[in-house]
Amino acid sequence: MQLIDGNKIAADIISELKAEVAEFSGRKPCLALVRVGEDPASVSYVRKKEKTAEEIGIDGKIILPPITISQQELESLIESLNADPSVDGILVQSPLPSPLDEKSAFKKISPDKDVDGFHPINIGKIAQEDESGFISCTPAGIMELLKRSNVNLKGKHVVVLGRSLIVGKPVALLALQKKAGANATVTICHSGTENLSTISKQADVLIAAIGKSEFVTRDMVKPGCVVIDVGINRVADPSKKTGFRLTGDVHFPSVSEIVSHITPVPGGVGPMTVAMLMKNTVKAYKMRTEKK
Amino acid sequence: MQLIDGNKIAADIISELKAEVAEFSGRKPCLALVRVGEDPASVSYVRKKEKTAEEIGIDGKIILPPITISQQELESLIESLNADPSVDGILVQSPLPSPLDEKSAFKKISPDKDVDGFHPINIGKIAQEDESGFISCTPAGIMELLKRSNVNLKGKHVVVLGRSLIVGKPVALLALQKKAGANATVTICHSGTENLSTISKQADVLIAAIGKSEFVTRDMVKPGCVVIDVGINRVADPSKKTGFRLTGDVHFPSVSEIVSHITPVPGGVGPMTVAMLMKNTVKAYKMRTEKK
Repeated sequence: MQLIDGNKIAADIISELKAEVAEFSGRKPCLALVRVGEDPASVSYVRKKEKTAEEIGIDGKIILPPITISQQELESLIESLNADPSVDGILVQSPLPSPLDEKSAFKKISPDKDVDGFHPINIGKIAQEDESGFISCTPAGIMELLKRSNVNLKGKHVVVLGRSLIVGKPVALLALQKKAGANATVTICHSGTENLSTISKQADVLIAAIGKSEFVTRDMVKPGCVVIDVGINRVADPSKKTGFRLTGDVHFPSVSEIVSHITPVPGGVGPMTVAMLMKNTVKAYKMRTEKK
Repeated sequence: MQLIDGNKIAADIISELKAEVAEFSGRKPCLALVRVGEDPASVSYVRKKEKTAEEIGIDGKIILPPITISQQELESLIESLNADPSVDGILVQSPLPSPLDEKSAFKKISPDKDVDGFHPINIGKIAQEDESGFISCTPAGIMELLKRSNVNLKGKHVVVLGRSLIVGKPVALLALQKKAGANATVTICHSGTENLSTISKQADVLIAAIGKSEFVTRDMVKPGCVVIDVGINRVADPSKKTGFRLTGDVHFPSVSEIVSHITPVPGGVGPMTVAMLMKNTVKAYKMRTEKK
């Protein structure tokens, strides 16, 4: 069994990006990070993104509007970032505190600065196999983990558990693309799926993104399968200082015994998302500077 | 076995649209049909669209630029139609004669007039389950055939053969949506799929869109399956005046014996595409007039 080490692969990508950015002449790539409110997870994610940007040589522009900001003011702020020639990528940290409308805010981000890949045009471009778009960070990270672990999806049966817009659907569309490394047969399962284990057991590659702690058990997995665990669930654990531990959507102890490759939680898909955000920001910078 | 009669269902939709359009006050909905060149199939399709529009009470605006039109001139024409407040929908008939770049031309059509549903933002909206977009006509027609034949996809396993952007991918995303009538488990197979018949035999609903004459044979289908045949293939047949006959992607004589529902070719999915184009045009009209 090979453990897919997301920390190691993310660190490789970050150091590759650092080397690439060092070669850029003129201004540095710039990522605007907009955070509204003091949600502790958001504070920590944005700090991590800022630190990683700095490490690479990307200018992280933190913007902290007051929590009282109106939807209209937030969207005006996004529009001013769209228009700002020194900004390459815009990230509005999710979740936005209520009553702000996250979906509407995301749609205001100019598609060519949408480094989170949430704009419908960027989802459409994945379906169209149009490489000019931005792929959202988690599915992009999954594909990169597979590629760098020498898992070629060609002719394989990929089963995706979960049909979310930010993981399940885009990763299914990516695995389906007619290009090197992809070209898989893809099945998408979800809460409405009947006979789930009959289907999951057919998977050569199983991608679990349903947000249910340790849902995938050994009897649901074919021996020799490659398992990518996207779940990050908090489970109460009084033995921990924090009072909880993190689990994936896969029951790691039993499943890991029969698979060929598996990602751990934490340390699998998680670290890849920030790395892919940085990769998207550098892509945005290159596309914008080449245009000029 | 129930034959799904596309001619009948398309006629129902057309008469419903006619009744709806009759209620509109003020100007009629308007569909601009752009055809370049004299490809016989294109001439016939555009004529059919024009006739159906007329029947419903939609103003069909036929535009026939010279075959010498440049890409830039064609795109300027599209832009003038985008800006024309009297035009609700724009259709550029495919295929465009070389050296015109069809993909680039389609992208110029304003998403809110893109009644063919080819703009990436309209594909993205299907993935996002955002009802404000336009669904391309063939997948929309398939969903409508199923709905009007009382085939509920909920919990069913839908297997799509073919991953094209205009049929396979959008119909898979539609079947996957978490809404009434849909909510299926979906598998997408294609030229790179191994053990195809093992998968196709699991289908409760099989959608064949691969463009290979009578490829799906009886041994590939589970008894009681619902079969939607999207293929329209020309097969040489000296006994016909035209020298050919039309076949689907399914071997109808043998498969129809074991299924619960099946679409014939011709007369199944084919007639639905024009009906759905008209439905999209009426939707575009309503969205545009409500805005004002």
